[in-house]
Amino acid sequence: MKIENSFPGKDVSAEDLRSKFPLAAKQHPTHQTIVNVGGAEIGGREIVTMMGPNLVENSDMIFTIAKWAKENKVSMLRGGCFKPLTFPYRGEKYFETGLEGLKWLSRAGSEYGLPVVTEAVSESQVELVAEHADMIQIGTRNMQNFPLLSTAARTMKPILLKRGFGASLRDFMGAAEYILLEGNSSLVLCERGVVAPHTHRATSRFLLDLQIIPAAKEITHLPIITDPSHATFWAPWVKALALASIAAGADGVMIETHIDPENAAVDPLQPLNLEQSTDLVGALKSLADVVRGIN
Amino acid sequence: MKIENSFPGKDVSAEDLRSKFPLAAKQHPTHQTIVNVGGAEIGGREIVTMMGPNLVENSDMIFTIAKWAKENKVSMLRGGCFKPLTFPYRGEKYFETGLEGLKWLSRAGSEYGLPVVTEAVSESQVELVAEHADMIQIGTRNMQNFPLLSTAARTMKPILLKRGFGASLRDFMGAAEYILLEGNSSLVLCERGVVAPHTHRATSRFLLDLQIIPAAKEITHLPIITDPSHATFWAPWVKALALASIAAGADGVMIETHIDPENAAVDPLQPLNLEQSTDLVGALKSLADVVRGIN
Amino acid sequence: MKIENSFPGKDVSAEDLRSKFPLAAKQHPTHQTIVNVGGAEIGGREIVTMMGPNLVENSDMIFTIAKWAKENKVSMLRGGCFKPLTFPYRGEKYFETGLEGLKWLSRAGSEYGLPVVTEAVSESQVELVAEHADMIQIGTRNMQNFPLLSTAARTMKPILLKRGFGASLRDFMGAAEYILLEGNSSLVLCERGVVAPHTHRATSRFLLDLQIIPAAKEITHLPIITDPSHATFWAPWVKALALASIAAGADGVMIETHIDPENAAVDPLQPLNLEQSTDLVGALKSLADVVRGIN
Amino acid sequence: MKIENSFPGKDVSAEDLRSKFPLAAKQHPTHQTIVNVGGAEIGGREIVTMMGPNLVENSDMIFTIAKWAKENKVSMLRGGCFKPLTFPYRGEKYFETGLEGLKWLSRAGSEYGLPVVTEAVSESQVELVAEHADMIQIGTRNMQNFPLLSTAARTMKPILLKRGFGASLRDFMGAAEYILLEGNSSLVLCERGVVAPHTHRATSRFLLDLQIIPAAKEITHLPIITDPSHATFWAPWVKALALASIAAGADGVMIETHIDPENAAVDPLQPLNLEQSTDLVGALKSLADVVRGIN
Repeated sequence: MKIENSFPGKDVSAEDLRSKFPLAAKQHPTHQTIVNVGGAEIGGREIVTMMGPNLVENSDMIFTIAKWAKENKVSMLRGGCFKPLTFPYRGEKYFETGLEGLKWLSRAGSEYGLPVVTEAVSESQVELVAEHADMIQIGTRNMQNFPLLSTAARTMKPILLKRGFGASLRDFMGAAEYILLEGNSSLVLCERGVVAPHTHRATSRFLLDLQIIPAAKEITHLPIITDPSHATFWAPWVKALALASIAAGADGVMIETHIDPENAAVDPLQPLNLEQSTDLVGALKSLADVVRGIN
Repeated sequence: MKIENSFPGKDVSAEDLRSKFPLAAKQHPTHQTIVNVGGAEIGGREIVTMMGPNLVENSDMIFTIAKWAKENKVSMLRGGCFKPLTFPYRGEKYFETGLEGLKWLSRAGSEYGLPVVTEAVSESQVELVAEHADMIQIGTRNMQNFPLLSTAARTMKPILLKRGFGASLRDFMGAAEYILLEGNSSLVLCERGVVAPHTHRATSRFLLDLQIIPAAKEITHLPIITDPSHATFWAPWVKALALASIAAGADGVMIETHIDPENAAVDPLQPLNLEQSTDLVGALKSLADVVRGIN
Repeated sequence: MKIENSFPGKDVSAEDLRSKFPLAAKQHPTHQTIVNVGGAEIGGREIVTMMGPNLVENSDMIFTIAKWAKENKVSMLRGGCFKPLTFPYRGEKYFETGLEGLKWLSRAGSEYGLPVVTEAVSESQVELVAEHADMIQIGTRNMQNFPLLSTAARTMKPILLKRGFGASLRDFMGAAEYILLEGNSSLVLCERGVVAPHTHRATSRFLLDLQIIPAAKEITHLPIITDPSHATFWAPWVKALALASIAAGADGVMIETHIDPENAAVDPLQPLNLEQSTDLVGALKSLADVVRGIN
Repeated sequence: MKIENSFPGKDVSAEDLRSKFPLAAKQHPTHQTIVNVGGAEIGGREIVTMMGPNLVENSDMIFTIAKWAKENKVSMLRGGCFKPLTFPYRGEKYFETGLEGLKWLSRAGSEYGLPVVTEAVSESQVELVAEHADMIQIGTRNMQNFPLLSTAARTMKPILLKRGFGASLRDFMGAAEYILLEGNSSLVLCERGVVAPHTHRATSRFLLDLQIIPAAKEITHLPIITDPSHATFWAPWVKALALASIAAGADGVMIETHIDPENAAVDPLQPLNLEQSTDLVGALKSLADVVRGIN
């Protein structure tokens, strides 16, 4: 089969596949990369779950969540330490925990045998993050910060690349190609919602794009997961969109979990509490078993 | 519980629920309408499947599809007879079958015990459609054609209301309210894709909005289904989005099925053939069983 | 020059121009229709201004505005009598004035020698509107209500066709073609804002698309105007966008003018008062003189 | 007048103005910053024009354009030396000229007494760019690359901040605040088109948002210009949108000018040639004279 003939009317052309992102392009229908992050396999038969708080607020909370995660067979622990903020001023409750948070996260992961993923916001942080985390997250606002992409890639750590909230699939592939070109093929894509005219909440502006899942599966061998927490910005809708992601063929989900959502330092409407998270993990497991059988 | 206090930051306010669409508004978390269309129940524990061609091209094809549908336990037969076309000129292959098509559809439904749904494009057609079909579809381009909504509602036939491709959830509720106000409460909503900046195919411009599923479930008691065929405009992505819809909590899906997609009179890239449709029906059934258990 | 060769990469292809909307298509770079509405010429060297209230609330207000309009050399009087409402229930202040309003509008126009334009919402109203108005407006929600388009066209009255707020330029041309095909070539297009991710006001959701002006000028001979009042939904921004429309090459603007905006029966944030309207008319005149010289 | 009371229904709240971007917020209706870039004043009574090639391809072309610019009273010379590319591979014609290009640009500016603006793509380039250019441009893909913003700001050079193509006005203000917080108040905003459902060309995806001009004028004292070349991606539409920008109240425009557009190394559909540029400069001048009088 010639992949290159199969894209009439696609935003991404056969010529793009050959010359714009040859490394990210799928070479054969069965071509699929599996990224191993400290034992968690992303892109294989099992879905992955990356769960944890938006911000690693203190040591206790991240150890509590890590313990819960381990008990519930969550694949990876996520948590923000360095964070890009829309505004330079922080709210009353907010405090960035930086390197200290990174160490808490790292220790919590080690203690419970969970690989950890966290974001690097600037080139100068990359080394530090690479030292303490198992996977480096590039955030939506930095998807086209090409020097950061290349610097992160050169650590040879697995990379989680979030789609820019205004970026096309073609832009997304371009960003992926920068990472792959450094010889780092441990790359996972993440759809996290895009700007759209209607999002059904006055306080949010993102719509989870699930058409990108089959679209990405057609053109690239890279695994792709979704982040329904940031897309919906509203805890009651997270489960529906997480399940939908897996049903659409996503290789996993990244979910915000907090021990006390109402008192979260950032975005309190968004995280699930532990009880809701446990319910979601169970639901995802049941669903994934079926989806595996029917695709 | 007071529903009206639960919508801070929602596009739809508590005031809207009370004064703009009191009939469509959910009055209690368990408030859920079940619409019965000739035996098919929409909004209950079982999901519904409405399948059939974009255009009822001839008698043979609709009987073949009806037979297949019956054998595969599809809930309802869909097919277009009268169609709103973007341009007044028809392509070489295209021909509207109108009343003749309506009779073929109706007979095929009767023959195989399947309720049928088809679109009414103008007020003057409503009576005719009501006479021959079990459910009247209002298309996306007519969602705010209020005289048509009211005329269709007054037949007391069940109505399938497709969301306008530029319409907000609030607009959608307004259109629903026009129908309910006529005393017709057999109303089903249908998400069919909205205009969005990126859709991943150069020839399409719609993105299936699955956030509307939990959003609608919060504010209205009306059932809601999706149409992944029109949203994706690309057969290979239909299964992924149909499964995602059910996982997100939709009450069913409407799917284009054709006996020979390549030679379809309209939109040949969109329909599934019978084999693909059989596979999809099986997958939906397996998925729905699980989703029912985990929600 | 062959128009058909000049559209590489255009949403509208040369094939569309030939086969989808041959009547609306521009046949030569100088091909430009001028629509005469009771003496007001739209599409010629002079810009047109259509001003008046969203709703013709009573006789006094429309006569006051008509008198003001005449004194300020406004081209046409606009005013709603029949209106499509998102919800079936009207607010406290709101009342549709229907035929009575239509007569007030018509008499005010006659008294001051101003052609009038008003909307027809349903096929059954078309005759009545045609009898009392000089131009029939088709609203954004009805742009693809094809029976209404054809019915309105057959009155042979000039038609003002507003772009659907989710419609593409190609959709817009399709709707225009339905009207032209009835032998009615007195057709004016109107851009009134489209749904977009960011509109800078929480209570509005439209963005005035000014790229459509040069785009339309390339492919169609039909005049095109804009409606900055509905697009911005905010009186303080109307002047900026009205001026921008003319600078972009629009053939005119439609503006909401009210004698007492704060107490307007509908959308009180939107209309200009008479003083602001006078200022705008003067500004538009000055601008148009310059724009004519530099294009 | 209390600005803070004047934003009911605005995406940006009074609370945002006080606590999220107090430095960028307008404190009084007449509060307006004028940024002086080597003699060119941005934000004052005169509009500014920044013209030049997408890429400074060689010494000859930039000197030719600089000479032309001086003769035509263009305010500033623009030209790319370092460029963020969507894909890591360059086309046949493309070559980044980097430091060499920067020196050509700088010398051409000096020779003809024109201040120059060029983009810095990474923190490590900032010093170099600051040394050779009069104004540092932050590109759309880097609008939320906060370390880059702060680094550029600390050079105390004037900054041209382009809006992210998916960013809200609120996001834009947040990015501006990062720059102002470094004590650098020589900041100019630039609207360059945002992602939108319809853009009227298959090969482009941006819509110039002119509603942001009056919106920005309401909430911030910072000057704002537009870039119609990148927004439209199509030379024949640039003039219309440039004129519209000035009519809407923009403080200037940035335009791509090339000596030989057909053979441009990047985006050949976009630049104006010198003849077209001369025509545009004249038209802008005539228009600005009128707009100044009517606002």
